[in-house]
Amino acid sequence: MPVRRFYKLYLSPSRKYVKTLKNLLGFVPGNLSLYRLAFRHKSVAQSVKKGVKNSNERLEFLGDAVLGSVVAEVLFKLYPYKDEGFLTELRSKIVNRANLNQLARKLGFEKLIEYDNRMISATRQGSLLGDAFEALVGAVYLDKGYDFTKNFLINHIIKSHIDIHTLEQTETNFKSKLIEWCQRHGKDIIFEHIPNQEGESTKLFTIVVNVDGEVMGLGKEFSKKHAEKLAAEKACEALGI
Amino acid sequence: MPVRRFYKLYLSPSRKYVKTLKNLLGFVPGNLSLYRLAFRHKSVAQSVKKGVKNSNERLEFLGDAVLGSVVAEVLFKLYPYKDEGFLTELRSKIVNRANLNQLARKLGFEKLIEYDNRMISATRQGSLLGDAFEALVGAVYLDKGYDFTKNFLINHIIKSHIDIHTLEQTETNFKSKLIEWCQRHGKDIIFEHIPNQEGESTKLFTIVVNVDGEVMGLGKEFSKKHAEKLAAEKACEALGI
Repeated sequence: MPVRRFYKLYLSPSRKYVKTLKNLLGFVPGNLSLYRLAFRHKSVAQSVKKGVKNSNERLEFLGDAVLGSVVAEVLFKLYPYKDEGFLTELRSKIVNRANLNQLARKLGFEKLIEYDNRMISATRQGSLLGDAFEALVGAVYLDKGYDFTKNFLINHIIKSHIDIHTLEQTETNFKSKLIEWCQRHGKDIIFEHIPNQEGESTKLFTIVVNVDGEVMGLGKEFSKKHAEKLAAEKACEALGI
Repeated sequence: MPVRRFYKLYLSPSRKYVKTLKNLLGFVPGNLSLYRLAFRHKSVAQSVKKGVKNSNERLEFLGDAVLGSVVAEVLFKLYPYKDEGFLTELRSKIVNRANLNQLARKLGFEKLIEYDNRMISATRQGSLLGDAFEALVGAVYLDKGYDFTKNFLINHIIKSHIDIHTLEQTETNFKSKLIEWCQRHGKDIIFEHIPNQEGESTKLFTIVVNVDGEVMGLGKEFSKKHAEKLAAEKACEALGI
């Protein structure tokens, strides 16, 4: 065992934190401050120069991009005979917020995230997990580089925790997802059919979704069902469901 | 000069193509078939197994992700005191279709792209360039790896062709962009103010953009100007402007 690694794990003042991270990630982290930053929500962050806070949001921006790129390559190679529409859709099923929240919960991120629960509603607390997961990817990237991050994501995360072939089969039912969410949060939801405008094809259906009286999505398609689906999808996106 | 490189540039049957690419990219490409694929539009692609075409669309999916990740890191490091909202917006100014089309034209991609011009409208032909640029990034990545691609993009593309600080200052005016586009393409455009729904805050404005009688975007904001801007932005997105 190299001296640095031995020191980090057994002698340094941060050895407990290093061990927790090692158990979680499967490797000994280098620059600890990056990992601390990845787990720090803005509700407990301090303002640094020019009013920017030392929260995980910037790392989340970087990690989101790196994760998107790694997953793109995995799918590109896993499905050599599928077109880019298929690849795009499958990637968004893998990296969507709900999936990342669940993943981060399974990985045990809850005990590592620092946040002030008085400032965040219970609904929002779940999505801190996914945000922290993306920020962690950003931290690993800055600490260890792209190839290391790619191997970490493939071997430690994707292979063990993400069932790509099952996700491939699941069609996301945005309408029922949205209705369920509204019921759980006590919100009124109305799907409204908007009459066609003058000159518009009479075959088109325009559906607007109202959540608590606010338009959250609009879909326009050649069948009412598809228009509803699209409107619900937009609303899910807008509400971050 | 290593033997392989010498062979590629001076002896191989593809030496002319290798030289063209070397002049364009600044390096000697490895796997030529990847680069040929990057420049092949689906209008001239052939069906391979299971109906997937050997066009540049899959590489475009991959290259878009790699480019997004490289630009994310560049901005993350260039602006240590800017928040993720700023970084996201600036990145989308850099990698938007119009900007990539212009970049690919400057790089001389026009003479390399293979496409069937009978199958593509003049408007659409411009955007083949940006698509091919993304596909090329995918090809370079598969051929040479992430760090090489990152250095290529930073030193050969971003430093020479993209003025990040000027883009930072430009605020995209989606409304005038959309109106101009409609005028150029002989399309009617109407910004329509939708009355508030019952129970909705009276301070909110809902604006819908109709292009040739079809709803292309909706914006809801606390000022009419912002609602229009948002609706125009959505319409630009939907129309691929």
